[in-house]
Amino acid sequence: MNDLEVRRAVVLLSGGLDSATCLKIARNQGYQTHAISFRYGQRHQHELECAKRLAVQAQVAAHRIIDIDLAQFGGSALTDAKIQVPKQATDAVIGTEIPVTYVPARNTVFLSLALAFAESIQAFDIFIGVNALDYSGYPDCRPEFIAAFERAANLATKVGVENPGKIRIHTPLIQLSKAEIIAWGLRLGVDYSLTNSCYDPDIDGRPCGACDACLLRQRGFAAQGLTDPLLA
Amino acid sequence: MNDLEVRRAVVLLSGGLDSATCLKIARNQGYQTHAISFRYGQRHQHELECAKRLAVQAQVAAHRIIDIDLAQFGGSALTDAKIQVPKQATDAVIGTEIPVTYVPARNTVFLSLALAFAESIQAFDIFIGVNALDYSGYPDCRPEFIAAFERAANLATKVGVENPGKIRIHTPLIQLSKAEIIAWGLRLGVDYSLTNSCYDPDIDGRPCGACDACLLRQRGFAAQGLTDPLLA
Repeated sequence: MNDLEVRRAVVLLSGGLDSATCLKIARNQGYQTHAISFRYGQRHQHELECAKRLAVQAQVAAHRIIDIDLAQFGGSALTDAKIQVPKQATDAVIGTEIPVTYVPARNTVFLSLALAFAESIQAFDIFIGVNALDYSGYPDCRPEFIAAFERAANLATKVGVENPGKIRIHTPLIQLSKAEIIAWGLRLGVDYSLTNSCYDPDIDGRPCGACDACLLRQRGFAAQGLTDPLLA
Repeated sequence: MNDLEVRRAVVLLSGGLDSATCLKIARNQGYQTHAISFRYGQRHQHELECAKRLAVQAQVAAHRIIDIDLAQFGGSALTDAKIQVPKQATDAVIGTEIPVTYVPARNTVFLSLALAFAESIQAFDIFIGVNALDYSGYPDCRPEFIAAFERAANLATKVGVENPGKIRIHTPLIQLSKAEIIAWGLRLGVDYSLTNSCYDPDIDGRPCGACDACLLRQRGFAAQGLTDPLLA
């Protein structure tokens, strides 16, 4: 295959269940995958270890970890140790309010850096595992935001100016339930024992089992008649 | 003045002539100004020293300098020492091609970080000194990109979801000539001896006098019958 025939994709890889699935989907669609992860002042570094192992397992062409200090802007339980991660939220709360785990403008920042990476390697496709159902409280996980960002990305860049609409933001999981995501990932061979979803794992990276992310994940496996391999 | 009456603005401050003018414009419009600068792998750090002095002189409420390693993406003469900054370009070239000084997705990355900062301090206004005339070769300096980013910003954030259209990206210089920018700045008391515009200054920060940015700046002062204070 010569260089012109390679279709490159940049895949945002947090180390969680969704992004691990997204990475395999991109590969399965024939893309040469270039993963990008962020050290953004999150409370725990365990998810980056997961991202590294997932990238190796998926045989990515490259994996970049970008330092970006979002914690200095404060305001989120994910980056500010003074704000507690909520536990055992009720169903009524999950998905109806903007959670305290929301990080200011996070997906805008992450997508803009993915765009810079993409432009530098002549990739026109960016995959992000956002999900509008489980996390409807996060404004930057909604399809209308992704569409607006994609439009901005095409206007922002050399390649978009030369080929309008060429840059595409792929969100294959955006309308799926957690159970559907897991089912798709299992068909593609995702090893979910390598992933982490917990907002507040212990020092060895074991999930708390009680935050929103843990609860949604457990239910997703349960709906498939499975136990989360992290809890097995 | 109580907290509710304060109108905060985030101003992108590179240390150059345009952003220095933009900062004074925001202040003159009654905003409490919060400057943000980036250490993004640029070849010289002198512009950040200029930004610091300008922020102090303009009595900003805060000045954040964010580390973000765009150089690892390569591809620009501004961040890659292997690519030469072009000198003595002809008029025919300035403004008609995408220059080698273009940094991949730079303004998208900078605006997204300014947005994160703005959201964390409850600012709804972001000022950026982009200019579509002198630098028409940079796609992310055009009004259509700014409008698309503003739309995405309102869809991305808590405050934009709660108050659609609340977040505004201000580009007061976008249609002005360099001479008009300088004239406006002088009326507002900008000290242009504190600014730097050169893409390739010497080790003491003195401008090369020959790159596109130097040439445009010299012409702007000349059109006002003035000499650039950096060359005086």
